[in-house]
Amino acid sequence: MLSLSSRLVERAVEQFATLPGIGRKTALRFVLHLLRRDKPAVDAFVDAIRQLKESIRECKHCHNIADGDACEICLDTRRDATVICIVENIQDVISIESTGQYHGVYHVLGGIISPVDGIGPADLHVDTLLRRVENAREVIFALGTTIEGETTAYYIFKKLARRDDLAVTTLARGIATGNDLEYIDELTLGRSIANRIRFEP
Amino acid sequence: MLSLSSRLVERAVEQFATLPGIGRKTALRFVLHLLRRDKPAVDAFVDAIRQLKESIRECKHCHNIADGDACEICLDTRRDATVICIVENIQDVISIESTGQYHGVYHVLGGIISPVDGIGPADLHVDTLLRRVENAREVIFALGTTIEGETTAYYIFKKLARRDDLAVTTLARGIATGNDLEYIDELTLGRSIANRIRFEP
Repeated sequence: MLSLSSRLVERAVEQFATLPGIGRKTALRFVLHLLRRDKPAVDAFVDAIRQLKESIRECKHCHNIADGDACEICLDTRRDATVICIVENIQDVISIESTGQYHGVYHVLGGIISPVDGIGPADLHVDTLLRRVENAREVIFALGTTIEGETTAYYIFKKLARRDDLAVTTLARGIATGNDLEYIDELTLGRSIANRIRFEP
Repeated sequence: MLSLSSRLVERAVEQFATLPGIGRKTALRFVLHLLRRDKPAVDAFVDAIRQLKESIRECKHCHNIADGDACEICLDTRRDATVICIVENIQDVISIESTGQYHGVYHVLGGIISPVDGIGPADLHVDTLLRRVENAREVIFALGTTIEGETTAYYIFKKLARRDDLAVTTLARGIATGNDLEYIDELTLGRSIANRIRFEP
């Protein structure tokens, strides 16, 4: 148990301890670190968090986080706006962007259908997606391979207007890089044999 | 590399990444967590940090952190103000308080003598200590067992007025709980044999 002889420190420790994966000991290390820094540095820290919450907006096109009306991805004219990658949340946008392999745009659903958590189709940004799809030539489902992810993909798939010139794709399933065969579940291994690809040494 | 499509998020991530032991990935997890929380919760977070820096004071007696003029330890009349434990910093106060074994007061030096880091005796709170010691019956050196710690203790020891009714003590040296003998350095082991204590099963 950490006995802190200051209510101000105690409060700051409690707040840092609300962050994911942070316990009271680490929170105290953060607080002591901030106490040692000069006021402008702490002000910059506080301002960045305050502005984050106050100024951040949602992109009117794709519901990604945005500094203004639209996010930087939707505003980027080099990106192919006719290819729409459907993801659950902004974290997924960041993950896919980090691969550097995708040059289309996104659509952030803001969740996936999950009756257990009380999330139904009406809670997701499906209507805006259907409108955007009218001008698209491909939609990619980049949702999790859970029951919820597959249910959500299926729900949206059924809503999509049948059009011959619209490709509907999903992320490739298979074994991950660096995996030993013995640790892969049977379903994944089965699919990766069935969908085997050309060996390119 | 994490590509963040928002300068606001980028700034907040950069700020969290200045905390000790926090990289950009963890910083981003913090930021996304704060984005998901409601405004009052984020306001409470920001306020706690801002107030910490703006309102925290230094105890006029012991230089510990304090919410007002004096810290809660110095204000606590149940504590023995005639026993003064000399520590390097506020982190040490927290560590000793967490043991629940100490009922005297503290004196935070604000550092230890370290020529390499350009810290001399004048940079430490020694004058205020010497004044407080006039009314004390014991001073305890709770400084590190490094050259700097021992130099600092020796420097202060020489400054203390010789008084028959003043006990000068230091933390017990010995093997730590849970240590195997084979991993203990010879100096520590030698001292713990020379200063052996009564076996109390």
